[in-house]
Amino acid sequence: MIDSPDVIVFDVNGTLSDMGPLAGAFIESGAPGHLATQWFATVLRDGFAVTAAGGSAPFAQIAQDNLSRLLTEHGVPSVADGTGRIMEALRNLGVHPDVPSGVEALAGAAQLVTLSNGSAQVAQTLLETGGLLRHFTRLLSVEDAPGWKPARSAYAYAAVECGVAPSRMLLVAVHPWDIHGAHAAGLRTAWLNRSGAAYPGYFTSPDIEIPDLPALARQLATPRP
Amino acid sequence: MIDSPDVIVFDVNGTLSDMGPLAGAFIESGAPGHLATQWFATVLRDGFAVTAAGGSAPFAQIAQDNLSRLLTEHGVPSVADGTGRIMEALRNLGVHPDVPSGVEALAGAAQLVTLSNGSAQVAQTLLETGGLLRHFTRLLSVEDAPGWKPARSAYAYAAVECGVAPSRMLLVAVHPWDIHGAHAAGLRTAWLNRSGAAYPGYFTSPDIEIPDLPALARQLATPRP
Repeated sequence: MIDSPDVIVFDVNGTLSDMGPLAGAFIESGAPGHLATQWFATVLRDGFAVTAAGGSAPFAQIAQDNLSRLLTEHGVPSVADGTGRIMEALRNLGVHPDVPSGVEALAGAAQLVTLSNGSAQVAQTLLETGGLLRHFTRLLSVEDAPGWKPARSAYAYAAVECGVAPSRMLLVAVHPWDIHGAHAAGLRTAWLNRSGAAYPGYFTSPDIEIPDLPALARQLATPRP
Repeated sequence: MIDSPDVIVFDVNGTLSDMGPLAGAFIESGAPGHLATQWFATVLRDGFAVTAAGGSAPFAQIAQDNLSRLLTEHGVPSVADGTGRIMEALRNLGVHPDVPSGVEALAGAAQLVTLSNGSAQVAQTLLETGGLLRHFTRLLSVEDAPGWKPARSAYAYAAVECGVAPSRMLLVAVHPWDIHGAHAAGLRTAWLNRSGAAYPGYFTSPDIEIPDLPALARQLATPRP
């Protein structure tokens, strides 16, 4: 149990969106499906590098540039076609099955916003397609912040935009690095662990761990003893 | 051509060491060999995340923890054995074929040091085994700096340790994120591009690009017109 927050801040890529279909887009492009996971890790690695060095860069630029080099390295017949196809798939992912009922239950508990290292447009398309956009008051992107999550400045930007103290916000994410950064910035944290994975020992532990979004709604709804 | 530096700073993992054999260690552990590349990207992603959030963590801890989760996820029969085998392989890599002659040629041109996100011990074992340790005056690790490369503080630490201005140092690395960070910290940069890859558009370009270390030695030895 944790105190009910004023604002629930959702990460987008992988937390709300199901990135599973990206493997199919790699295969259709003539590349192994397992590259989807490597690609996403590489995009975050490079975005975090730019942030650690004191700057920022658009997610889509890092994603597309990395993709083009990755497909070239793997001898894909048409790198331009493959890059276009996979970037299109990234912009048109669907939500995880637990997201609609979870978001609807949580909408009564707090103000809901997103905070993504990607663009606000990708979040908007995702939530519009999923019929969930009406439940969110703000779709925030680090493109308007000094750096990417997990830099403190990204979460501080979200707190200012929402007009609340960081301690009144709850960050929900599947990514342990996001939990770590949000905690350092003073937010409370909920780790969405759909796969039953172990939490990395080098990141700050989450305040709560939940297997899906409805479970988070139940925890927030339960009165304290 | 660039002005001869006082100090040449070498990255270690992948720049001096050949990480190719790691794929074999994954296969011997019962996991696909392509996971080696994904694993290394993930380790850097998480190390950069800790740095971007304002902290630091030991490379070996992040590497081992990630490896254990990755092998579990891929259903490897004995995760403990596989983790031990792959970490052992990481500690005992050899140098790339161009490194011995390149380092010997460069030793006459400047003071040679290493600066790694890994431990100084790994660099020492690598260079001792390769018979090159005598050419290096310092083996530096970000474990003694406030954060990992590419944070400015990591390069600043190396400059202080070597007693020279950052502008008198040349960073040599295969990783574009390292080139980007070193440039931001005021060092000059040489991108070692053994594979003929394209340079990412979102990182600051290197001052020079070379296909191997002997080519760097020739560039530094060539008198300016």
